Amino acid sequence: MMEEIHDEPIALERAFRAERAHAFEFKRFCGRQNFRLIVLVARGTSDNAALFGRYLLELTTGIPVSLAAPSVHTLYHARLNLRQALVIGISQSGEGTDINLVLQAARRQGACTVGITNEPHSAMARLVDEVFLVRAGRQRSVAATKTYTGQLLVLYLLASALGQAVTLEEVGRIPGHVRQALRLESEIRELVERYRYMHECAVVARGLNYANAFELSLKLMETCYVVAERFSAADFLHGPIALVERDFPVMLFMPPGKTFAEMNRLAKRLRQLRAETVVISSSDSKLPAATRALRVPDVIPELYTPIPYIVPGQLVAALLAEAKGIDPDRPRSLKIVTRTR
Amino acid sequence: MMEEIHDEPIALERAFRAERAHAFEFKRFCGRQNFRLIVLVARGTSDNAALFGRYLLELTTGIPVSLAAPSVHTLYHARLNLRQALVIGISQSGEGTDINLVLQAARRQGACTVGITNEPHSAMARLVDEVFLVRAGRQRSVAATKTYTGQLLVLYLLASALGQAVTLEEVGRIPGHVRQALRLESEIRELVERYRYMHECAVVARGLNYANAFELSLKLMETCYVVAERFSAADFLHGPIALVERDFPVMLFMPPGKTFAEMNRLAKRLRQLRAETVVISSSDSKLPAATRALRVPDVIPELYTPIPYIVPGQLVAALLAEAKGIDPDRPRSLKIVTRTR
Repeated sequence: MMEEIHDEPIALERAFRAERAHAFEFKRFCGRQNFRLIVLVARGTSDNAALFGRYLLELTTGIPVSLAAPSVHTLYHARLNLRQALVIGISQSGEGTDINLVLQAARRQGACTVGITNEPHSAMARLVDEVFLVRAGRQRSVAATKTYTGQLLVLYLLASALGQAVTLEEVGRIPGHVRQALRLESEIRELVERYRYMHECAVVARGLNYANAFELSLKLMETCYVVAERFSAADFLHGPIALVERDFPVMLFMPPGKTFAEMNRLAKRLRQLRAETVVISSSDSKLPAATRALRVPDVIPELYTPIPYIVPGQLVAALLAEAKGIDPDRPRSLKIVTRTR
Repeated sequence: MMEEIHDEPIALERAFRAERAHAFEFKRFCGRQNFRLIVLVARGTSDNAALFGRYLLELTTGIPVSLAAPSVHTLYHARLNLRQALVIGISQSGEGTDINLVLQAARRQGACTVGITNEPHSAMARLVDEVFLVRAGRQRSVAATKTYTGQLLVLYLLASALGQAVTLEEVGRIPGHVRQALRLESEIRELVERYRYMHECAVVARGLNYANAFELSLKLMETCYVVAERFSAADFLHGPIALVERDFPVMLFMPPGKTFAEMNRLAKRLRQLRAETVVISSSDSKLPAATRALRVPDVIPELYTPIPYIVPGQLVAALLAEAKGIDPDRPRSLKIVTRTR
């Protein structure tokens, strides 16, 4: 897992260089289509990437986005009206049976289909209208890291094809931001000692980084066996905050930008409750309320924070697993390709 | 909370009688609109009702459904193309500022708006094109129960207006099914003793009952301070099952129907892992794999199970809180109307 986290800058550069021209072609194709709806379909870590895509694509293209409920297609066999819809499947292996069934159903129902996968010869790559490759190299660890950030990068390329707000210049800087974030490793190695006996926690974010709350909590569950809840800051205040007593650990993604004030309001509330907070933020933001802070060195426009901001989270999961004496590459009860319907 | 759970059959009958004619009028209106997209927007318990609506409306109308991300509107101020979209806001109080902001933005962006609320004089009721009232009577407990099932009932009425699959005859039987489910009270009062010292658990479902997994886990967090994770059975197998060791408690909604086989596959896997399972199912289903089973007495078509099936869950939360010595009507850190953006 650590090795694959360290591969991320190179993997992201490779994906950017290889797929940017493809995104440019796709832009011409999209210009003729007039999509009215984007549907994202995925499972597990890839579904967290889809959740990021849900925000990114809606914010930067103005096209409404829906996260598909696979069972609607695979178990209930509903027929939806998907004319003028773009349906995007995301799967590391490209072999998730349920995701591919949804893509097939979507094609029959009139949608244009795109696959985002790491495997060029997978079933997904064969069945969609257009394939974007993550090019992360072989994933050996069961806990996905470089394929998650690679999927996010490809979603930026799709957003640049479908709208005006994402610029390829800023996307091209992301691998450098990830290199900077990786410098937090030794600091995180010390930090995780404090959480050696943590059994439960919550991970909270909003907006573009909301998906990272899901992804960090999934990593903590898979690799550290921590019962990690994930919430938006707003939903957390609507009930689950009742869980929080003194010392309850809450991790927060707090990039400067549109969501900072609301996140900071929550952080202050958590301090009143004497919770333990670990905040991932930027080097220049004011954080009066954090117990511990991990500061991503670069100053990054909020739109481009989600990839560099998950990296300290991935390091926390990998190094905490190590501190707990667990092999994060072989979580109990898991295989790398999970077949569900 | 117990009192409000016991109010549910009468509250549901009242909502059904008062709003069925309204649904009938709405049907004529919808027939002229040709909606291409339905967007649901809510927070907290109402967002769990929205998650049910996401499945119900897609399955029974064929119109794609999206759950809104409020921050896209309230923090990022994005402009979406919502022409030919039906945007449905759900809020007990009708005073959720963020939800109302999204409804206002949606109107400006061309959508037709509907509000589902318990409060006829609320801000939401005033700003939408069409209001459906939950008519649950005043909610005194912070933990919502009768307003959740009331919101689900109204969603059935909307589904009957927008498509063919939901019949008012079956919807009219739901209050009776709830009465039957309430008979489980004394059995549940004994059952919860076993979970007096439970600190964490997972709640799992699929399809139409997936929202109930969110709702039961929220009730367990709010009223019992149990760190309760919520998952679809498929997502659970994609990683979080690594959490499960001997005795780890997992609650499962398993109505007979399209999702039963997949849920049963998970229940069997959990038995292999020697987990503790509490299954909510019907009186006639075969459950070889459950540690404990709560059997809803009536035999109900799967489409109409979500309301009666959450009732044993509500009873578990209320009675477990009592067993733990917590007042479920006054969870720490919570108020009945939560203001977020």
